[in-house]
Amino acid sequence: MRRFKPVRFTAVRMESGFWRERLDTVLTKTIPSQYRQLQENGILDSLKIPQPPPPLRIPVGEHGLSTQLFWDSDVGKWIEAASYALSHRRDATIEDQIERITDDLERAQLADGYLNCWYLDREPERRWTNLRDRHELYCAGHLLEGALAYWQATGRRRLLEVLERYVDHIATMFGRAPNQLRGYCGHQEIELALIKLFHATGERKHLELARYFIDERGAKPHYFDVEAIARGDDPAKYWFASYEYNQSHRPVREQDKVVGHAVRAMYMYTAMADLAADLGDAALQRACETLWRDVTARRMYVTAGLGPAAANEGFTRDFDLPNDTAYAETCAAVALTFWAQRMLNLDCDRAYADVLELALYNGALSGLSRDGVHYFYENPLESDGSHTRWSWHPCPCCTMNVSRLVASVGGYFYSTADDLVAVHLYGASRAEVTVANLPVVIRQVTDYPWSGVIALTIDPPQPLQFKLRLRIPAWARTHQLACNGNPLTASLERGYAEIDRTWSSGDRVELELPMPVERIYAHPQVRADLGRVGLKRGPLVYCLEQFDNPDAEVGLVRLPRLASVGVQVRSDLFDGIVTLVADAEAAQVAADSDALYRTQPFPTRPTHVVAVPYYAWNNRGPNRMQVWIAES
Amino acid sequence: MRRFKPVRFTAVRMESGFWRERLDTVLTKTIPSQYRQLQENGILDSLKIPQPPPPLRIPVGEHGLSTQLFWDSDVGKWIEAASYALSHRRDATIEDQIERITDDLERAQLADGYLNCWYLDREPERRWTNLRDRHELYCAGHLLEGALAYWQATGRRRLLEVLERYVDHIATMFGRAPNQLRGYCGHQEIELALIKLFHATGERKHLELARYFIDERGAKPHYFDVEAIARGDDPAKYWFASYEYNQSHRPVREQDKVVGHAVRAMYMYTAMADLAADLGDAALQRACETLWRDVTARRMYVTAGLGPAAANEGFTRDFDLPNDTAYAETCAAVALTFWAQRMLNLDCDRAYADVLELALYNGALSGLSRDGVHYFYENPLESDGSHTRWSWHPCPCCTMNVSRLVASVGGYFYSTADDLVAVHLYGASRAEVTVANLPVVIRQVTDYPWSGVIALTIDPPQPLQFKLRLRIPAWARTHQLACNGNPLTASLERGYAEIDRTWSSGDRVELELPMPVERIYAHPQVRADLGRVGLKRGPLVYCLEQFDNPDAEVGLVRLPRLASVGVQVRSDLFDGIVTLVADAEAAQVAADSDALYRTQPFPTRPTHVVAVPYYAWNNRGPNRMQVWIAES
Repeated sequence: MRRFKPVRFTAVRMESGFWRERLDTVLTKTIPSQYRQLQENGILDSLKIPQPPPPLRIPVGEHGLSTQLFWDSDVGKWIEAASYALSHRRDATIEDQIERITDDLERAQLADGYLNCWYLDREPERRWTNLRDRHELYCAGHLLEGALAYWQATGRRRLLEVLERYVDHIATMFGRAPNQLRGYCGHQEIELALIKLFHATGERKHLELARYFIDERGAKPHYFDVEAIARGDDPAKYWFASYEYNQSHRPVREQDKVVGHAVRAMYMYTAMADLAADLGDAALQRACETLWRDVTARRMYVTAGLGPAAANEGFTRDFDLPNDTAYAETCAAVALTFWAQRMLNLDCDRAYADVLELALYNGALSGLSRDGVHYFYENPLESDGSHTRWSWHPCPCCTMNVSRLVASVGGYFYSTADDLVAVHLYGASRAEVTVANLPVVIRQVTDYPWSGVIALTIDPPQPLQFKLRLRIPAWARTHQLACNGNPLTASLERGYAEIDRTWSSGDRVELELPMPVERIYAHPQVRADLGRVGLKRGPLVYCLEQFDNPDAEVGLVRLPRLASVGVQVRSDLFDGIVTLVADAEAAQVAADSDALYRTQPFPTRPTHVVAVPYYAWNNRGPNRMQVWIAES
Repeated sequence: MRRFKPVRFTAVRMESGFWRERLDTVLTKTIPSQYRQLQENGILDSLKIPQPPPPLRIPVGEHGLSTQLFWDSDVGKWIEAASYALSHRRDATIEDQIERITDDLERAQLADGYLNCWYLDREPERRWTNLRDRHELYCAGHLLEGALAYWQATGRRRLLEVLERYVDHIATMFGRAPNQLRGYCGHQEIELALIKLFHATGERKHLELARYFIDERGAKPHYFDVEAIARGDDPAKYWFASYEYNQSHRPVREQDKVVGHAVRAMYMYTAMADLAADLGDAALQRACETLWRDVTARRMYVTAGLGPAAANEGFTRDFDLPNDTAYAETCAAVALTFWAQRMLNLDCDRAYADVLELALYNGALSGLSRDGVHYFYENPLESDGSHTRWSWHPCPCCTMNVSRLVASVGGYFYSTADDLVAVHLYGASRAEVTVANLPVVIRQVTDYPWSGVIALTIDPPQPLQFKLRLRIPAWARTHQLACNGNPLTASLERGYAEIDRTWSSGDRVELELPMPVERIYAHPQVRADLGRVGLKRGPLVYCLEQFDNPDAEVGLVRLPRLASVGVQVRSDLFDGIVTLVADAEAAQVAADSDALYRTQPFPTRPTHVVAVPYYAWNNRGPNRMQVWIAES
């Protein structure tokens, strides 16, 4: 039974402030530059089947893999990001670019609907022979998400029709009928895209196909074994060794540990939560809840970064959260926001929204530079100065994952149920939500996340009774609420303050969330954070960047347990941010004369430190950085 | 100008106590079991050229490398270890085993002296074509060290003659004459072996060949490039990418950072220090001193383990000393004792002897189990319980490196110069040293390392004036000294108390070294040890092993800054050891109910901890362990 559904991105406009500034950058810098990168890196040309000579190809590595395998997905994600941008402001150039891509895809598509440019160009006879490694369904999923967003933003349906034909082909290929392959993709994605298609079109066959892919995953005999044998490979020689890598080690309802490749995991859980809601599948919901507890209680960075290890781009052991070598792929934090949003559909609990917000403002947003054209693939929590932003990446997945998130951020602000509107995120914005089949305009005026003071005005077309739920983040601890100037006390429903009244046009709700600086301590089993403290204010995790701390190498800073940490508004820094400042200590080191080991602690001297939001780091060039500071 | 030379292992007998117990295990368990392993793993059969069918071969990996390439060296190291054992007690079985190996090697050797069983069997036409990767000279060096030790222990010279013929062949192949290859080995070892041969035989040509190998290293054009081109390989495709890996990135006198593969580095520095002494080469000595400071001030674990990374089995960045992933190969710590000993020849400074002792008792000895038949290849300073001892290893280098060290440990106790005897190490023993051309017997009666009380008796054949230098370890801080019951104050010469007198038979020196428990703090730039403390007493580094601490997971223990740490003699544990005990705290964790991040430090509860010497860990099975304990 579906209780809540998110208010679509097209209905929420960021009017000013934090997200408007990010959004403008994405619209004016990121989307166009990503198009140029797709062009310059041969990715757009790869859609032109047959390939123009000389063929644009990048090499296949030792496991028969190549990042070119995913190029269709990169195009799909760019279309999706660009379409979200179009929903803010139509742009003939961008629409023309998408139309030309549509021409190519239409031309490339086979009569039976098949459409994967890698296979069409390179080895058309081997399509659907290696679902484990070759990302065919994954690419289809991203193209489908792109086509849907484009249709929703512009009303143009031609690309979606191409994709619908492809989806129909996929539906004939995969399933439990005797003439079908009982396969599913090694990289989950198609599942959540199919559910989006169902939500947009109402055609239940798409939901059923997604359900099939999720239900079949991990069944015995294992499809990836069957398929490997069929193509003459030895399944025992799987280059990744374990099917935990792609979460097909067991049926999804039996999974209780978050394992393997982090992005695959998050995409799968997103689809599972969607299905749990759409099908009212309690077992699936329980599996989602168990996995949610597992990742948030044992396997998540304080920035909501996920996946410590480069080796599998994913999870390792409980509490294994190294800082300097953290992989914490941008895509994984982006995907965590997807999953969190779907969990909110099942259960309007701030536990989900708090993590959604944490991932959004920290682990995901850090992946995009302030100038909008540089990126992080990995998001470590500590750097010796060698970590740098890329202008592009051989595997550009993260670049468009973060741009599509920012360009659609409004879509994460609200959910509605029959007689209820829930506000999950705060930010200066204007939304048109539907309650009791009537359009209600909600405006937020706020300087969030720099301040926790939020004024909401509610404009129904006529006096209308409904519940307004306002998320009180766990970090706020308390809150003050007023309606039309009259203080009120609302009961907390799973962390949401609920106001149930008949709303009239111009009604004004004032919410004040205290934003004290918080010291954060990691669970004692997180060895990497032992003896260290993190700083957080509101949804923002802070870090010490060397640029702001010329007096001491940031790795040598010790923050005394009782040192007071102050707040300083810095209108001169970036677009105006709040920094944290404190008197602290710095370990004294004297270069070569120091012994490596001593019988007394090394001495310290007084210093002063300035911390900036984690998402903002490395925007003045690479330098030393750390989130977890030694506490003295 | 050579000032000091070590007293040879054959002249020092361990009479009882710590090293006698280890030695007995090596003699009775380790040496015979290693012979069986060499047999069972086909290593001894690989010497039988041509190979008996079916050939005993292990596969060649992706870079054309195989551990079988080094099998000659494993045989050489076993002969060396076994010969040291023979010096303690002749054994007809072992001698017969070595004679049969000699038969095989004699038979395998070509008329021109060449003798590498891998090449002779597999690709005789390609000998000396890949010095970079194929360990030919390395194998020769280990066989030579084995042959020398066998001759010194038993007087049997046939094996040494085989190797001398091989060395003569090598001397014709390599050098600067037009018909010679200007090569040197990718894995240093032959250099130090040749110098040993020079010391044993006095034949200067061997010193010159060693000098050539050391001097030529890193010269331009780079030999490994030249050689790669000659065999049709692309030098740019070197699988390790950088010649830092084998310390040939620049001429050795210009090297000032300890880099690359740790064992190769240590073997090279050993030869460099030897040459510096034998040739009076001040530039070489300066390079050694610079490298020594670099490794001990920035790149050495508190256990004297070396090389944090598995990727290159070696060094990474300054202060990069992770605990749980420490590679710290047993061989590297063993090789550090070699280098330290050679530095003591140049300069009788306790800085070298302190590190020698540290490596011996900690990073090296940890590699050998108490039962004498299990080993560590890696020696991490922290374990989640997954690190286990092996009964053998596909690359068994460490097994015989540690046994040859223990079987010859007496050889590290003393050095002499013309009118001087220096005592570097303490332990119950009887040595016959030569001073002023006369044999002087020195006995030590002591329970070292459990106690710092040492009684030495000096027995010259006639009253004899010479200086006795006694190392006062840096950890002792103070000492008390008496001669024949009369307290005396000796001046400290670079950390050695010097007594200059005319010694008569039966003279007795009593030395008392205080052995307080020390707290050890790492340099603040060692991120892995931030907020942590190590425990040390005398030469022994201690660790918490889970077995001794049932009350709390050792990773959750916090040792209060001011907690007193006591000493407890435990005659019930192993062969009787001293443990350290303290009242401490343990972080309280409550399984699944804990948040991963909190705004208050996690609470603690009182506990009691027991620490055991690091070398002794993992002798009761794998379990959690840690050297660096959080300090509260």
